[in-house]
Amino acid sequence: MGQRLGDVSAPARLAGPEEGISREELALAARNHGLPLEALRYDVTPPGLHYVLTHYDIPWADGEGWELAVGGRVRRPLTLGVGELRARPPATRRVTLECAGNGRALLSPRPVSQPWLTEAVGTADWTGVPLRDLLAEAGVASDAVEVVFTGADHGVERGVEQDYERALPLDVAMGEEDDDVLVAYAMNGVPLPPQHGYPLRLVVPGWYGMAHVKWLRAITVVDTPFTGFQQTVAYRLRQNPDEEGEPVARIAPRALLVPPGFPDFMSRARIVRPGPVELEGRAWSGRGTVTGVEVSTDDGASWHAAELEAPSADGTGRWAWRRWRLRWSAEPGRHLLCARATDSRGNRQPVRQPWNRGGFANNQVQPVPVLCVDDGERQDR
Amino acid sequence: MGQRLGDVSAPARLAGPEEGISREELALAARNHGLPLEALRYDVTPPGLHYVLTHYDIPWADGEGWELAVGGRVRRPLTLGVGELRARPPATRRVTLECAGNGRALLSPRPVSQPWLTEAVGTADWTGVPLRDLLAEAGVASDAVEVVFTGADHGVERGVEQDYERALPLDVAMGEEDDDVLVAYAMNGVPLPPQHGYPLRLVVPGWYGMAHVKWLRAITVVDTPFTGFQQTVAYRLRQNPDEEGEPVARIAPRALLVPPGFPDFMSRARIVRPGPVELEGRAWSGRGTVTGVEVSTDDGASWHAAELEAPSADGTGRWAWRRWRLRWSAEPGRHLLCARATDSRGNRQPVRQPWNRGGFANNQVQPVPVLCVDDGERQDR
Repeated sequence: MGQRLGDVSAPARLAGPEEGISREELALAARNHGLPLEALRYDVTPPGLHYVLTHYDIPWADGEGWELAVGGRVRRPLTLGVGELRARPPATRRVTLECAGNGRALLSPRPVSQPWLTEAVGTADWTGVPLRDLLAEAGVASDAVEVVFTGADHGVERGVEQDYERALPLDVAMGEEDDDVLVAYAMNGVPLPPQHGYPLRLVVPGWYGMAHVKWLRAITVVDTPFTGFQQTVAYRLRQNPDEEGEPVARIAPRALLVPPGFPDFMSRARIVRPGPVELEGRAWSGRGTVTGVEVSTDDGASWHAAELEAPSADGTGRWAWRRWRLRWSAEPGRHLLCARATDSRGNRQPVRQPWNRGGFANNQVQPVPVLCVDDGERQDR
Repeated sequence: MGQRLGDVSAPARLAGPEEGISREELALAARNHGLPLEALRYDVTPPGLHYVLTHYDIPWADGEGWELAVGGRVRRPLTLGVGELRARPPATRRVTLECAGNGRALLSPRPVSQPWLTEAVGTADWTGVPLRDLLAEAGVASDAVEVVFTGADHGVERGVEQDYERALPLDVAMGEEDDDVLVAYAMNGVPLPPQHGYPLRLVVPGWYGMAHVKWLRAITVVDTPFTGFQQTVAYRLRQNPDEEGEPVARIAPRALLVPPGFPDFMSRARIVRPGPVELEGRAWSGRGTVTGVEVSTDDGASWHAAELEAPSADGTGRWAWRRWRLRWSAEPGRHLLCARATDSRGNRQPVRQPWNRGGFANNQVQPVPVLCVDDGERQDR
């Protein structure tokens, strides 16, 4: 008796200077998963390789009986089944999605939460109904300022019991620049897998994952700014815990390498043979178009421009990562490879960590240690 | 110059008494992933939720050009494309697959390797050609003792460069009791996903995952016992490093609970309301048929028989997990739930850890801490 949620739900904290990854962080790492970096080779991430982050449990969902409510400050509230959404004109967008916490476990000090290294990313073709079509049908009231999205995933976080909820500014939700925000029911041409939001999720191209509310049950137009936990407590950029902080929003530019050669099982160190090595990877930004990728094979002492694949001519790939390549001539010894992206707004990946208490939007360059050894160093198995 | 593989590829070790999870273990946990335990609700694990363990990289495979060589001590060596295998009479088996290292990170002291908690499991319908059909076609020589399976995944482990390779005793490979060992090309009715072995893998029902060689390129019949790294160095049950050790083979019985109620994000502690709670889960064994599941809601002080779902009448589910259920009446306070399975050979899950240096076959019962709180304890979000 007298037990409280706070007994099992602690405040946010930073790890101590020598503190290893805790059992709690490991439990999150075992459930959620990143993209194995060799899968950067695929234009569209195959099923099961796209990163997944679930705050609470994956809800057990009945797609047939699912209802999405569109309400709040609208003239004609709607209640829509999945079949009704599928009957409307569809739109498909290829979108690269990245978790806002990607890179968190590389920070010092380390914010204690889902301990991502650099792999919380993936690209998929999402199909659904443009959000602005639904909002236009419902008729947004003139005093509306934001739109709140409610998922079916339910849990506790820092003592606060909640359904997962996030809001978007009205102009983003209405797609005043374009129609890209989707209420999606399909991923890569098939119904959403459970962990990606079956049967309905929001897709907000260019924004970090926290905005893409999964297991979407309600869309509520509001006339005052939303102050829910995931908007005003979590997902803020803060140096000190008592700051209001800046909201996490669009994805900062990042380039990742397909680690070359082959790995050691335990250290994941990479081994290559001397000679030409084709380096390749992907780069993306939610803040502009990726305009350049530079690669260093000497730990940032010198940088070389990579060849960047042209974007698709029809514009469907504007929210998807771009492939890049560079030929490297490997010589025996140890090397530290890295790559950095620049976008059309002049944003470039930093070499030093952009630290904040939540470990969000950390797009520090990825270091890839490589050992180049002659074949003569090979031992018989 | 003078660099060696051993510089980046260390011997096996145990973690120190207070040592947290290392960056290297975390890198494995971020790539590989378990089954989120709420997904135990599905008879067949949906795409992307089945556990994955890849020793090295997922190979980049061209399914059209793939060739499987059947050779060694056979009378008629074969070279088979994927299309040729698909043209043969297919067999489909529903199989529960578990990683031999499941539970490793719960051990004390903790063997440093892929740090699984309890979730390295999944169930799929695998379709392919019975291995014994291929061996019969090739004509196994009378002096054959084992069959070696070679995958395309290449890497280094404890200083040894290798393709992943494992062997089966001839009687298991020939399916002398049944035809269940498969060379599989489909998972749940579609081509294998890359991380599950595309385009071909071995499926050995009842055996831990290390036997189910992925990205299968060669089947080689041999007349002396195979001594490769994954057979004689790794995957052995040892108390001391210099022992020969017992080989890891068939899956020990295990029951897992779907964690009831809802979670705290960070601690994963479970919260339920007072009153009836439907407990459910799955149980399996590769050493016999699961004959009973007992559940404790008081940390093992008392045990109650769960209702066990009947196996499928047609025998197709003999290698698949069985669902179990038990109604619990939750009262406010803290509770520690657990479940244990018993199989037809009299094997029962232990409450104490079955420790060995590799952390294999650890089927210690899963503890599920639950906090039962009144609705009145709910705080507004």
